[in-house]
Amino acid sequence: MVQGLDTRALAIYSPILDQLSQVEERLRDLADSSIPELVPLLEHALSHGGKRVRPALTLLASNICPQESESPIKMATGVELLHLATLIHDDTVDDADTRRGQASVSGRWGKEVAVLLGDYLFATSATLVCDTGNLRVVRRFAETIMELASGELIEYFNTFNPQQELDRYYDRIYRKTASLFRTASETGAVLSAASEWQIQALSSYGYNIGMAFQVVDDLLDILGDEAELGKPVGNDLRQGVLTLPSIMLMQRYPEDNPIPELFRKPELNGELERTLDMVKNSTIVPDCYAIIRDYCDEAISALNTLPAGKSRDSLESMAAYVRERSR
Amino acid sequence: MVQGLDTRALAIYSPILDQLSQVEERLRDLADSSIPELVPLLEHALSHGGKRVRPALTLLASNICPQESESPIKMATGVELLHLATLIHDDTVDDADTRRGQASVSGRWGKEVAVLLGDYLFATSATLVCDTGNLRVVRRFAETIMELASGELIEYFNTFNPQQELDRYYDRIYRKTASLFRTASETGAVLSAASEWQIQALSSYGYNIGMAFQVVDDLLDILGDEAELGKPVGNDLRQGVLTLPSIMLMQRYPEDNPIPELFRKPELNGELERTLDMVKNSTIVPDCYAIIRDYCDEAISALNTLPAGKSRDSLESMAAYVRERSR
Repeated sequence: MVQGLDTRALAIYSPILDQLSQVEERLRDLADSSIPELVPLLEHALSHGGKRVRPALTLLASNICPQESESPIKMATGVELLHLATLIHDDTVDDADTRRGQASVSGRWGKEVAVLLGDYLFATSATLVCDTGNLRVVRRFAETIMELASGELIEYFNTFNPQQELDRYYDRIYRKTASLFRTASETGAVLSAASEWQIQALSSYGYNIGMAFQVVDDLLDILGDEAELGKPVGNDLRQGVLTLPSIMLMQRYPEDNPIPELFRKPELNGELERTLDMVKNSTIVPDCYAIIRDYCDEAISALNTLPAGKSRDSLESMAAYVRERSR
Repeated sequence: MVQGLDTRALAIYSPILDQLSQVEERLRDLADSSIPELVPLLEHALSHGGKRVRPALTLLASNICPQESESPIKMATGVELLHLATLIHDDTVDDADTRRGQASVSGRWGKEVAVLLGDYLFATSATLVCDTGNLRVVRRFAETIMELASGELIEYFNTFNPQQELDRYYDRIYRKTASLFRTASETGAVLSAASEWQIQALSSYGYNIGMAFQVVDDLLDILGDEAELGKPVGNDLRQGVLTLPSIMLMQRYPEDNPIPELFRKPELNGELERTLDMVKNSTIVPDCYAIIRDYCDEAISALNTLPAGKSRDSLESMAAYVRERSR
C-alpha cells in the first residue's frame, strides 16, 4: 500500500487501490538489482513517500473505459519512476541536500552519483513504458522528458531576470509540471478501450490539472507557512525565480517595485518582505485563485462527456482537491 | 559531410557517405530549436568533431541486407545523439572542463546546465528512435542507456579500489562502451531485411568490436603519448580507475606492487611512473594485444556468414583498423 495518504486521498484513490499497490510492488522490485553497487541507491531513491498523484492519474484514466490489461500498471510505474528520476536531477541542479526531510541522493552520495543514478532511472522508466508494447505512449513519454528538461533549462536561464512575460511563464510551467500530468492521464487512456476523442478529453484533463497544480504551488510559496511547506516562504524569489504572483506584481507596479532590487541583491531580506507584503495586500491573490479555479473547471468539464462511474468521480474529486488546496 | 576523417576512415565509410551526410544534416537541424535559450547550447553540443563511428556502424549493418527505408538514418542519428549526451554527463561527473580542445558544456555553462542539457538530448535521441516505428529497437535503446549509466556508476564506486576481478572489468567495459556499439550494429540489422540469425551475427560483431575498442583505449592510456591522447599518460590510474593492464599487474605481482600505495596517495608521481614502467616491461602489453586480436577476430568471424559486399568489407576493415590502432 501507499504509505501516508490522508482520508481524502484514500477516498479519491479507492477505485484503484489494488492497482496502486501493484505499482508500489513493482517499484520496490526494481531495487533488487543484479548490480550490488546500485542496491542501496535504488532502495533510497524508490522509498520516498510521495503521494503517487501521477500514477494514480494514469490508473484512473485507464479505468474510464477499462479493458483487461497489465499495461496501465506498467505505464503508471514508468510515470512515477520518471518523476523520481527528475527529482534526483532537480536536487542536483538546485544543490538541495535534503528532500522531504531525508538526505537527497546528491546530498548523500554526491552530484556525480546523482547524475548517473538519474540517467539510470530515466532509462529504466523508458523500458517499463516499452513493456506496454505501445509505441505511441513511448514516444509521448520521450517527448515529456524533453519538455521536463527544457522547462528546467528555461527556468535556469531566466533566474534573476525581472522582466518576464506571462505567456513564457505558462509555457515554462507546462513543460516543468503539466506535461507529465498530461502524459500520465493521456497514456492511461491510450492504453484503455478509449476512443480518440476520449483520449483527447483525458489529455486535456491532465494538462489543466497539472497547470492548476503548479500555480497552487507557486502561490503557496508566497502564502504558505514554513512548517507546512518544508522550506522557507519566498523560496522562489530568493532563488531568482519569477512565478505568476510575482510576474503580476511586476506588471501592475512597473515603477515602484522591489523585485529588480531584490534580484540585484538577493541577500536583502527587506526587499523580499516588501515583495511578499505587496502581493498579499493586492488583488493578485484572488486573481491567482480565479486562474486556478478556471484550470480546475476546465479539467472537470473535459470529463463531462466521458462515461460516468467511480473513476470519473475520483478525477472530479481530484480537481476539486487541487482547487481547495489553494485557499 | 563528416569533417576531419582520414583517408582510411573515408575508405571504410565509402558505402555510406551519402547516408552519413544525412545524419550530419539531421543533427545540425536539431540545433534550430524553437526554444531560444537552447540554440547556443545545441549548436555547441552538436558541432563536436567526432569520427561518427557508432552511426557508421548502424548504417553499414543496415546495408548488409538493405531495404528501402529512412529508418536506419533516423536510428543512426539517435545513436550518435545518445553518444553526445553521455559525453556531456561524463564530463560533468569527471569535472572535465574541456573535450577535444574545446570547452565542455559543463566547463562553459556549468554543471547545472550540463545535467539538464544531457537529459534533453537523451530524450531527443529516444524520440528519433521512436520515429523508426520499431518497438524492438526502442527497447534495446532504453536498455543501452541503463547499461551506460550503470557502467559509469560501477566504475565510480570502484575508484581507488586496487582489488578488482577481471570478469568485473569485462562487465564494466561492456556496459560503458560495447553496449552502445552492439546496439548501433544490432539495430541497423533489425531495421533492414536481415533475418534473426543475421541480426544476431551483427549484434555479436558490434559487441566484439566495442570490447576491442575499449581495451585499445585502456592500453593506449598507458602506452600512448600525451600529444596523441590529448590527455596525460596514466590518466586512468591517476583517477583511481583500474583497467585491463593494471588489473593484470595486480594479479601477477600481488606482493611488490605500487598500485595500492598509488591509490592511497594519488599525488605520488613516483608510484605512477613505477606502475607504468612495470606494465611496459612485462608480458602484459603483448597479452593485451592478444586479447584485442581475439575480439577483432571474433567480430570478423561473425561477419563470415553474411552476404558479401561493400558494407561487409567495410565492417571487416573497421575491425582490422581497431586491431592496428593498438600497436
